[in-house]
Parts: sequence; structure tokens; C-alpha cells
Amino acid sequence: MNETSKEIMSGYVSAVEQTLKKYSLTPRLIQQASVGKAMDYSLEAGGKRIRPVLVQAFCDLCGGNAKNVLSAAAAIEMIHTFSLIHDDLPCMDDDDLRRGKPSCHKKFGEACAVLAGDALAVYPFEVISSDESLAPEIRVKLINELASSTGAEGMIGGQIIDMENEERDDISEQELIFMYSLKTGKLIKTACVMGCIAAGASDEQVKLAKEYAECLGLAFQIVDDILDVTADEKKLGKPTGSDSEENKTTFVDLLGLDGAKKKAAELTEKSLEILDRFENSGFLKELTEYLLVRDH
Amino acid sequence: MNETSKEIMSGYVSAVEQTLKKYSLTPRLIQQASVGKAMDYSLEAGGKRIRPVLVQAFCDLCGGNAKNVLSAAAAIEMIHTFSLIHDDLPCMDDDDLRRGKPSCHKKFGEACAVLAGDALAVYPFEVISSDESLAPEIRVKLINELASSTGAEGMIGGQIIDMENEERDDISEQELIFMYSLKTGKLIKTACVMGCIAAGASDEQVKLAKEYAECLGLAFQIVDDILDVTADEKKLGKPTGSDSEENKTTFVDLLGLDGAKKKAAELTEKSLEILDRFENSGFLKELTEYLLVRDH
Repeated sequence: MNETSKEIMSGYVSAVEQTLKKYSLTPRLIQQASVGKAMDYSLEAGGKRIRPVLVQAFCDLCGGNAKNVLSAAAAIEMIHTFSLIHDDLPCMDDDDLRRGKPSCHKKFGEACAVLAGDALAVYPFEVISSDESLAPEIRVKLINELASSTGAEGMIGGQIIDMENEERDDISEQELIFMYSLKTGKLIKTACVMGCIAAGASDEQVKLAKEYAECLGLAFQIVDDILDVTADEKKLGKPTGSDSEENKTTFVDLLGLDGAKKKAAELTEKSLEILDRFENSGFLKELTEYLLVRDH
Repeated sequence: MNETSKEIMSGYVSAVEQTLKKYSLTPRLIQQASVGKAMDYSLEAGGKRIRPVLVQAFCDLCGGNAKNVLSAAAAIEMIHTFSLIHDDLPCMDDDDLRRGKPSCHKKFGEACAVLAGDALAVYPFEVISSDESLAPEIRVKLINELASSTGAEGMIGGQIIDMENEERDDISEQELIFMYSLKTGKLIKTACVMGCIAAGASDEQVKLAKEYAECLGLAFQIVDDILDVTADEKKLGKPTGSDSEENKTTFVDLLGLDGAKKKAAELTEKSLEILDRFENSGFLKELTEYLLVRDH
């Protein structure tokens, strides 16, 4: 990433992290403080904040002001964090580490982790609905977009397919693409669309944003599969090889390592072409390359 | 309940059950059908549908039309159902039975139950935000009310206190009242308030609705505690004595059985007095007595 893009990126990241702090419930909680601490713990564990960055970047790209979409940016990061907390549970992927730290249930116990995830699934809708700097029509659209991409037809649906696929060894590429399009793709698409909604983007802009997000989301997941095989465990912040340990079919299984890399490269190319159709998409192009050539 | 009230009640119940069926996601789900089935299973398990009945009853009471608030009525029942699914999980209350049937995780497995609960926590916000028969301003208010009463400052916060209290034997009446006011009280209050919001009720009406709901919610919980000691297991649809087995402090522990009954009766009296300040509150009075003198 060039210096200008690095600055924009760190501005977006810092804006959403400040917003998440502002929305922390812990100071307002009394007897139930532990659930607030577990929420904050997982929200503060970091990560790349890709989704809230995309929200802000698409808002700016489509002529809006990213500062006006911070509630939505924080909201989508909460949804993402809720999904990580629940995915790590013993009855799900049973992961002890997340981003190099003990996962939420390891730190706070299983019941508290279930409830912290639950609270982070619902709080985003309180946050957006109470953001009076956005017109009610906009708030309703943002909420609808976020809720529908999170639920059984979106991220949560993808997670159940992923769980059920573990018992199978005959998954096709099409099935894998469908699962990923829900589990990780939907929320990435929604991040881009929320930015568009807040900016009052044209239908054509929304259409392009969705096409871009589809390429990015799939490529991002393929890169994740590749990193699970090739990455340095310390850099990744979680154990590598977990997919094959859990008998998960990955793109590396289906296409081979080189085939997966080729597919990721093609999708990267296509997403950059789509961004060419926007003016001032320099930052998003840099971001796309950063996300798809990462080593962790 | 008199015949007129029974008819009104069954009209409200049947309206929300039809609405829940209409919103069923199962027909739209492909590979992830199991999560939809688990959602429907728990939604169809029945129960008294008290929260959606209160939404409709308060909408009618405040001069609105209950037919216009069915999305919100269905939404609050989804939230209630999500909380039951997660409360029954092995890491929470570990209940095998719910309403006389296997609990969701017993029927569909733990991972699927976690995800079905998650989906039912988020779907309500999709349902309300997409209800174009309500003005965007109203949708935003309904969503804000529902999300804030569900989260860490509401129902979910109450659940964590309840879990953490299990390890203590020095719970005071005030602490117990606070826990119940979150765990079960908040959603009952929100049911009444949502009805008011949809009807465009006055501030005075909303204030009275909240006062009524506080009495009703607490009394309802005390009655639950009493029934856990005295009820017929078959009628209750779940094992009795579970509170004392789990070392939960109840109002019966703190006040004795007679004291608890007296407190429930006083709260019933007070809630009926509040209803007297509304016109045409005949149905709600009957409902209040029905809820607080139930044997299951």
C-alpha cells in the first residue's frame, strides 16, 4: 500500500475503533458487567477491520462522507465479531485462539461467550436505529441490509452449511462457492452496499459495488484457505492446518495450491477492473491488492 | 377469561402464528435448510404468545389497529424464542425439554441450535425494517425499542446475572428484582411499548403502559417461581423443581410460598388499577388475571 492509502486506511480504522469505544456498554452495565467485558474483549482483539473500512471507503467513493456512516461501520464489525465468538465455541469450530489471544469462551467461559455473541448480534440494530444523524429511511435500509445478510439466508446460513459439510468428502466447487458466498461473502457485500446507501449512491453504483464485493469476498476466502496451508502461525494469530484437521474441504483441496492461487489472482484482476469504473478509486484498489496478497 | 376475551385472545394468537408462518425462511433456504427447520420447530413449539398478544392489545388499546403491528408482534416472539433456545443449551440451563418437547439442541444438535438462535436474534430486525406498511420513523422506533431491551442492558444482561447468581447463596430481594426486570421484564415492557409506538400513543399512555408492564413482568416471574414448586409437570411442559436443582434463588426462597403468593397478588392488583386509567381495557384486565392465576 502506498503512503496515501496507508494514511486513509489508518484513518478509517481509527475512526471505527473510536466509534466502537464510544458505543461500549461496559460503563453502563451494573451486575451484568461481565458480558460487556467479554463484548469489549472480542471487539478490541483487533483484526483488519476490513468490513468497516469498506463501509467508509464506499461511502466516500460514492460521494458521501465516511464520518456519517460510522454507526453502520461499527455495527457491521459487531456482527462480524459476534460470528467469530460463536464460531469458536466448543460445539462449533472449537478454537482456543483467536487473533493470537484466548478466544472469548476460553477467557470468559462458554455461557458468557454465548451471551456476549448474542448481545453483539442485536446491539448493531440499536446502534444504527439510534443514529439521528441519518434519516430514518436510511437507517431502515441499513438495518435491512445488515440483518438480511447476517441471518439464515446469509452469514449464519453459510456457517451451518460449513458445519454440515465437515461430514462430507464430495463437496463440489459450486457448493463451496455457495457456502463461502453466504458465510463470508454476504457481509463483505453488505459492507460495500451500506457505504453506498449512506452516500445515496445510484443504482448503477450499487450494482458495481455488489459485483466488486462478490469477487473480493470469494478471493478473500480462497486466500484464507491458502494461508491455512502456507502461513506462519504467529503472523496469522491462529493455528494453521486447522481446515484439514477439521476435514474441511477448501479451494486448495479442489484446485490445488497453484490452482487456488491462480483463481485468487483472476478474481483480484476482475475486482480491480470493476473499481476502474469508479472515479477516485485509488484507495480501494490499493486495499484490494493489500487484502489479496496478504501473508496473514 | 370471559368468552369475549377468549375470542380476542385467540384472534391475536392466531394472527401472530399466521404471521410467523408467513415469515418462515425454510422455503427460501437451500443447502442451509436445517437452520430454518430448527427455527420453525422452536417457533411452532407454541407457548402462550404473551408478548405478541401484548403488542397487539396495547396497539388496539391506544387507538391503533393491531393488524398493522403484526411484524413487530412476530419479531418479539422470535426474540423470545431465540432466548429460550440459547437458555436451554448445555452450557446454559442445560434443559432437555421445552414446552413438553425436546429442546432445540436435543432435536437438531448443539451447533444448529446455537445458529438457529442466532438467526432468530437477527431476523426480527429484517422483518420490521422491511414492513412497508409502517412509516420509516415508526420502524426505527420499534427496532430501537426491541434491540435495546434484548441486549446487554436487557434480556441478555439478565440472563448473565441469572447464570452468575447460581454460584451465590446471598442474593437479596433487590438483586433478584433487578435480574428479573432485565431477564423477563424488559421484553414484556417492550411488547407493551411497541404496541403504543405503532398506535402513535401519547407520552402519558406510554408511561402508564410501562408502569403496567413492570408490575405484570415481575408478577409473572414470581408466579413462574411459584409454579416451579407447585405445578403439575405435565401441564407445565417442563420439569418442575429445576430452580432448586440448579441452586437458583427464587422469590419463594426469599419470601416463602405464601409471601410470594401475596406479592404476586399485590402486583396483580396494582396492574389492574393502572389498566383502569385506560378506556376499553377489559381484555387486558382479563389477560392480566389469566396470566397471574395460571397453573402452567
